[in-house]
Amino acid sequence: MERKRRSFIKKAGILAASTTILPNFSFASFQPQQKKLGVALVGLGYYSTDLLAPALQLTNHCELKGIVTGSPEKIPIWKEKYNLKDQNIYTYDDFDKISNNDEIDVVYVVLPPSMHAEYTIRAANAGKHVWCEKPMAPTVADCNAMIKACKDNNVKLAIGYRCQHDPNIQAYMKVGKEKPFGKVRMVTSAAGYFDGRTTHWKQQKTMGGGVMGDMGVYALQGARLATGEEPISVLANTFTTRPDIYHEVEESAMFQLEFPSGARASCHTSFGISMNHLKVIYEKGSLQMEPHSSYRGNNGSMSDGTIINFPIENQQAKQMDDDALALINGTDLIVPGEEGLRDITVVEAVYKSAAQNCEIKL
Amino acid sequence: MERKRRSFIKKAGILAASTTILPNFSFASFQPQQKKLGVALVGLGYYSTDLLAPALQLTNHCELKGIVTGSPEKIPIWKEKYNLKDQNIYTYDDFDKISNNDEIDVVYVVLPPSMHAEYTIRAANAGKHVWCEKPMAPTVADCNAMIKACKDNNVKLAIGYRCQHDPNIQAYMKVGKEKPFGKVRMVTSAAGYFDGRTTHWKQQKTMGGGVMGDMGVYALQGARLATGEEPISVLANTFTTRPDIYHEVEESAMFQLEFPSGARASCHTSFGISMNHLKVIYEKGSLQMEPHSSYRGNNGSMSDGTIINFPIENQQAKQMDDDALALINGTDLIVPGEEGLRDITVVEAVYKSAAQNCEIKL
Repeated sequence: MERKRRSFIKKAGILAASTTILPNFSFASFQPQQKKLGVALVGLGYYSTDLLAPALQLTNHCELKGIVTGSPEKIPIWKEKYNLKDQNIYTYDDFDKISNNDEIDVVYVVLPPSMHAEYTIRAANAGKHVWCEKPMAPTVADCNAMIKACKDNNVKLAIGYRCQHDPNIQAYMKVGKEKPFGKVRMVTSAAGYFDGRTTHWKQQKTMGGGVMGDMGVYALQGARLATGEEPISVLANTFTTRPDIYHEVEESAMFQLEFPSGARASCHTSFGISMNHLKVIYEKGSLQMEPHSSYRGNNGSMSDGTIINFPIENQQAKQMDDDALALINGTDLIVPGEEGLRDITVVEAVYKSAAQNCEIKL
Repeated sequence: MERKRRSFIKKAGILAASTTILPNFSFASFQPQQKKLGVALVGLGYYSTDLLAPALQLTNHCELKGIVTGSPEKIPIWKEKYNLKDQNIYTYDDFDKISNNDEIDVVYVVLPPSMHAEYTIRAANAGKHVWCEKPMAPTVADCNAMIKACKDNNVKLAIGYRCQHDPNIQAYMKVGKEKPFGKVRMVTSAAGYFDGRTTHWKQQKTMGGGVMGDMGVYALQGARLATGEEPISVLANTFTTRPDIYHEVEESAMFQLEFPSGARASCHTSFGISMNHLKVIYEKGSLQMEPHSSYRGNNGSMSDGTIINFPIENQQAKQMDDDALALINGTDLIVPGEEGLRDITVVEAVYKSAAQNCEIKL
């Protein structure tokens, strides 16, 4: 398999090896000469169709250049709509040939979670940087294999977490870090919506379904991002209000977390309950967000009267531009594979705690 | 022991046997002739001194007539301040003679929780109605003994739950009952404050300390009152951030509840964390209160824009007047002993779940 690992760097016309950090590099200074990174979307379901492809029309540092799909009927529609070249259109069978394609710098894996590891590893082996949708993968073992494959191929791996790119989420992360109200003591974090589907991958175990990886990761992130810490113990239960639909995977989960600083969190998530709120109790104040992890409109307030309500045109465009710039500049990704792994580590602990009906130490 | 169980009824000059319900009885119609019920406070700590005695100066249907104390130095102060007769002042030793005192209709037990059962039973045996502070008692067995003693003596038992008498709390209870937003799906309920004391009864096991009975009952009530249901399972852990102080009893607790309707709740309580908020997610809306169980200022809003912010001059006065009127009219108490028992049943389950590190079915 031919590899063109650093093709985008050459095309970008700048020196940016993976270890080179340019913290004071001015983005504006190279923008005029800067070619946009070419992105290929792998999997053309709802998220690619309705969110990522439209967002890629708004990005400044990357653009939709290719697709990888198992649905031939979608090809003419996408070709016409996004002016895609035939040579940039792949099936799952000939996907590995993407290694020869200089127009594709990044492969964005937007498949069901059970396929994330395979396609991330194949993309890495093809010498392409990888953006992978959340949840990173169904297991910690998968996540580790994905990280290793990208490292071995000297390509970067970013997880498609919109939220960390949203200035409203960054605002509450900053409060946890800078501690204007002292240490975090208690977090309540909820993320859920009513999913009326019955045969989607979210309801199928073999495809990586279940609420924990999907909305559960947002509830978990509320706690992880507010504290800036990783949990050291998990006490959880999972349940369903619709056993006719949710018999392979859980519809809902509730989990309590303990953090090294002594902070605690109570998180809940569901495909049956519409909720999206975050409450953080500090030693000397509090913060609340509602919603805290939506596609848009995340906002909140603090006990000192500070309002959190930053405008953000399009989260996905911001995410992809942030990630493209990090690749171009050789700077740290905001959400590298290791961050996705952190969540899946807790997701596995939630399942274990619920199954064993006891607290799990991490 | 002589008993004067129904003395207040005779004095009130109305017929109000315990089974007589007068739902359309106009309170105003008898107010002019109505003698106030005489209340004796048992235990003259902070709550009696700073809250109940002052509140009894605001009540219309009951008044402070006596005290029971083990601190002789407090007697002259209380006598002068509240114009108490010598014959209405008791020690713990001669307390049972209160049965002969026609001026005392109600004994209000405001002692540490470990003493609630003993003094409630002694008051009931003396033929007096009993108001007992929360938590009702450290164990379900105590609660049952208290209820039985009052039943056997044909006197009424009310638990000193301020909140159910507050129209702001009644407002969210009504939403759970009338279901304008459909069924309750998820409740988050927090109640805690920073207690800097080290040797108070709240830190002592033998006196009925621990956060669960104290602030934990408010966190629990947030869930019970919002759903109008009793939990059927509990998953809990308890912890402390100050083991030097909280070695006999827990400083903090987190517990997840399951209700028969499928509603779930996540509750947390602490003597180390200042928090007081309630969030209720319904099928088609939400409600939030902050604070939800404070002495004053409980308020909130609903997802349809409804504001919950009823004025209430004094919760304790409202509670005691409601309870006095129920005794006078022979109508149902808002918070009878059985309601206190419901909370203690869950408190016991929380301890059991935390100790056994597993879910407890109720």
